[in-house]
Amino acid sequence: MKEEFLKEAYKEAVKAYEKGEVPIGAVVVKDGKVIGRGYNQRIEKKNALYHAEIVAIEDACRNIGHWRLDDCEIYITLEPCVMCAGAIMQSRIKKVIFGAKDEKGGAVISKYTLFSDSKLPFKVEFEYVEDKKCSEILKKFFKEKRAK
Amino acid sequence: MKEEFLKEAYKEAVKAYEKGEVPIGAVVVKDGKVIGRGYNQRIEKKNALYHAEIVAIEDACRNIGHWRLDDCEIYITLEPCVMCAGAIMQSRIKKVIFGAKDEKGGAVISKYTLFSDSKLPFKVEFEYVEDKKCSEILKKFFKEKRAK
Repeated sequence: MKEEFLKEAYKEAVKAYEKGEVPIGAVVVKDGKVIGRGYNQRIEKKNALYHAEIVAIEDACRNIGHWRLDDCEIYITLEPCVMCAGAIMQSRIKKVIFGAKDEKGGAVISKYTLFSDSKLPFKVEFEYVEDKKCSEILKKFFKEKRAK
Repeated sequence: MKEEFLKEAYKEAVKAYEKGEVPIGAVVVKDGKVIGRGYNQRIEKKNALYHAEIVAIEDACRNIGHWRLDDCEIYITLEPCVMCAGAIMQSRIKKVIFGAKDEKGGAVISKYTLFSDSKLPFKVEFEYVEDKKCSEILKKFFKEKRAK
């Protein structure tokens, strides 16, 4: 199940890659069904906030017609940043599963451990399920970018 | 100058209050001019991410047509949460000025001190300019809500 949804998140990352955006994707899942999808669209939308997670959360809120994403999980190709970790807490998502660590900016197990040492009333479970494809597409993207 | 822009942020908070939303407002300022405005619209937009700061940042990005808000300041009636502090970093805003502390969820001087102890490469200056009106409208809102 986890692998299947991480694959869905990866498909979103591929969409970002094809548009020249940093390839990160996310899906929001409820009762075993994808209810929101998103890929990084920072350049396309001319908006610093359009990380994959934000787009997927907004899509899920639109689809269920409510701001609370109770009992939902979010599958992300990369460990979320501070903003996205905060957005996950705000939207009451129950669990985060991610396929690659972000040593430079990750807010779950890398730079910060916001869900483990939360001083806030939001409880978010998390799991790092390593998926090489998730990190490899990022490496490929940055290697090609440097070559240009 | 600071007081003037904090007043503009307060005007946004009043708009939220009038719509029955938690009354928080924000404005983004560049070269002494307001380039983005926002008030909390979580219920109206059915979206957990529509905090005043997010709305104001998105408005500013739309108005200048770029995701980077270099050399911009954001004036907020309340200390930002983790998500909004992260969004401020992501959008490269230079300085944050806020009129009230958020002891329960503030990420600048209260629950977290993300800008002071940043492990990230983003430098964000901040200033707490106490403005009683900013906290009073929140107290009034919650008092009325409890009375209902």
